[in-house]
Amino acid sequence: MRTQVVIIGSGPSGLLLGQLLANSGIDNVILERVDRNYVLGRVRAGVLEQGMVDLLDEAGVGARMHAEGLPHEGISLAFDNRRHRIDLHGLTGKRVMVYGQTEVTHDLMDKREAAGLTTVYEAKNVQPHDFDTASPFVTYEKDGVTHRIDCDFIAGCDGFHGVSRKSVPQEAIRTYERAYPFGWLGILAEVPPADHELIYANHPRGFALCSMRSEHRSRYYVQCSLDDKIEDWSDERFWDELRRRLPKEAAERVTTGPSFEKSIAPLRSFVAEPMQFGRLSLVGDAAHIVPPTGAKGLNLAASDVRYLYSGLREYYLDKSSVGLDAYSGKALSRVWKAVRFSWWMTTMLHRFPDTDAFGQRIQEAELDYLVHSQVASASLAENYVGLPY
Amino acid sequence: MRTQVVIIGSGPSGLLLGQLLANSGIDNVILERVDRNYVLGRVRAGVLEQGMVDLLDEAGVGARMHAEGLPHEGISLAFDNRRHRIDLHGLTGKRVMVYGQTEVTHDLMDKREAAGLTTVYEAKNVQPHDFDTASPFVTYEKDGVTHRIDCDFIAGCDGFHGVSRKSVPQEAIRTYERAYPFGWLGILAEVPPADHELIYANHPRGFALCSMRSEHRSRYYVQCSLDDKIEDWSDERFWDELRRRLPKEAAERVTTGPSFEKSIAPLRSFVAEPMQFGRLSLVGDAAHIVPPTGAKGLNLAASDVRYLYSGLREYYLDKSSVGLDAYSGKALSRVWKAVRFSWWMTTMLHRFPDTDAFGQRIQEAELDYLVHSQVASASLAENYVGLPY
Repeated sequence: MRTQVVIIGSGPSGLLLGQLLANSGIDNVILERVDRNYVLGRVRAGVLEQGMVDLLDEAGVGARMHAEGLPHEGISLAFDNRRHRIDLHGLTGKRVMVYGQTEVTHDLMDKREAAGLTTVYEAKNVQPHDFDTASPFVTYEKDGVTHRIDCDFIAGCDGFHGVSRKSVPQEAIRTYERAYPFGWLGILAEVPPADHELIYANHPRGFALCSMRSEHRSRYYVQCSLDDKIEDWSDERFWDELRRRLPKEAAERVTTGPSFEKSIAPLRSFVAEPMQFGRLSLVGDAAHIVPPTGAKGLNLAASDVRYLYSGLREYYLDKSSVGLDAYSGKALSRVWKAVRFSWWMTTMLHRFPDTDAFGQRIQEAELDYLVHSQVASASLAENYVGLPY
Repeated sequence: MRTQVVIIGSGPSGLLLGQLLANSGIDNVILERVDRNYVLGRVRAGVLEQGMVDLLDEAGVGARMHAEGLPHEGISLAFDNRRHRIDLHGLTGKRVMVYGQTEVTHDLMDKREAAGLTTVYEAKNVQPHDFDTASPFVTYEKDGVTHRIDCDFIAGCDGFHGVSRKSVPQEAIRTYERAYPFGWLGILAEVPPADHELIYANHPRGFALCSMRSEHRSRYYVQCSLDDKIEDWSDERFWDELRRRLPKEAAERVTTGPSFEKSIAPLRSFVAEPMQFGRLSLVGDAAHIVPPTGAKGLNLAASDVRYLYSGLREYYLDKSSVGLDAYSGKALSRVWKAVRFSWWMTTMLHRFPDTDAFGQRIQEAELDYLVHSQVASASLAENYVGLPY
């Protein structure tokens, strides 16, 4: 079998890249380790930058997002028992779209199926080969049979734990990492959200986030210890803790109810450099991880897709490899800015177990300055809605 | 002897406060531990915010500053062998004034002498008393005789090591402190500066700063180890190290020459809370220290003076103690913002011995974002020229 681009991974970045390529007449095959429902079962991010919204539109999968997604024009920062709104739209002219990653994936899968494009689910032992030559290929096993797809390029969209980055010789890659000394305990509940916009709260007891998936489904988080176990957190304990960390007026507007998803996630920053190795390019989580504060993970994957798609399009349609050769540099320049922003938002909003009294006052002074300075608020806002490509 | 306000310390904050009070008809006496020439011999900061310039004008001591000072409309940040100008004036509408602290002190001393106001130099064992009552007084020794001045208020303008803060019971004061793991090695030389504006450089070998006192006198600094000794740093070694840390085009414009002052200073952040204890108010370095990055130390002292002067004026002229009672709160709100800014500038521009690879890339990403974002540049600029009172 032969195709132009083999995409490893059918998460939103692999699917989006595949759709954009297909729309431009560039053949591609997606290989996915697990089955369709497993992919859709992953609960992830839900705040899309305008740039990602535009890219989904360009891919032709924006209709349901525009119908069901919630455009947001601001966020709140809460501390010291008060809430301060950051007017994202007023400060930048842009909005963000609240629309779950699961829904994005669903829309992309539906589109791909309707277009009759090939996705191989439950492809085992996927392995990229010879990507340092002009004739790369990918092997995988399906139903006990080994298959081989020859191709021009391989896109590694298979996440942090995927095979793509691991296939690169260790000496060719440099990694940067930061682990944070806490986790996020998150729940989903079928209750209306406390506010129509997101509330990021810094409280002496720790960070809290009021988010949502829709007008009827809330997503809440509280900063927790990395030693905490899900079993320790009854719904009742969660709701009590959440409300304790919010300003009184916001706490009073939290509607409680049974959670139908509850999980603890560690927070980390990770970047691998470069993002391109001959004919293998890494995309999204395969190359970088950000803590969820600031909602940059999915959006960064989308900007990688945009750069890679543009390079591949130029290669096939304009017979130029200039854009493709610049992929890693272009992508990483934006990646580092988002990694910095996510690190900064995380640092500013969480309580760190070993912060001294001076550090704590610096954090408070930063929040105080931030919400009272137009340009500092605008700096947060321009990062939150997404820096220009 | 009796006066309305006893001012301890004849540095620029004590002198400025005394002049402003005297201009409003409020009696004051300044007590200074050392002699006039010792005070004038201190080599310190030299970048004045517009707010401090205005206050010096209000005190009637601005004439020589306007004639000889250098108004600056921008600064440069240098890294990665390139220089990026931050257009302070374009971004904020404000300028800063380069005019040495020694000159400010000189002008204030001359004015005070001309006005016939009392300054007691070489006042030994100065001690504030009973400032928790309505009848405070200050004792000191001069030529072997003990003197006592009764007063309404005491202003502690005697610096970090002064007696004022130390006179407050330990349990009444809370302190916040951060030591930085490096120092600044600074020189003064009678050579024209490398540039007409300041250059703040972040280089793998460490921070460097190109500054000046006038068009013929340069002030340069390089980050050094706290273990370094002045004897280790010949002029030749200093000039070589400085040039190595600057972009090529700037290094080439450094004029070298013999230094006539050379010293190593540690960098620290320090804040004491509150800044007012009954009828004793702390002003400037007596209450807070910032690292010199960002040139906030002298300017913060001036803003303390402004708040305290305004409170005392209200007390004597309008018979209201509202402003005076709010002194500590008002001053500290601005102090913490400047402490944050100085900490941030220091963190962003220096190399820290135990920064990991991730931290180093975050620093680079921050600089890259900062110089390319209009609002981030404006945030630096509004802090550099001085936040509003």
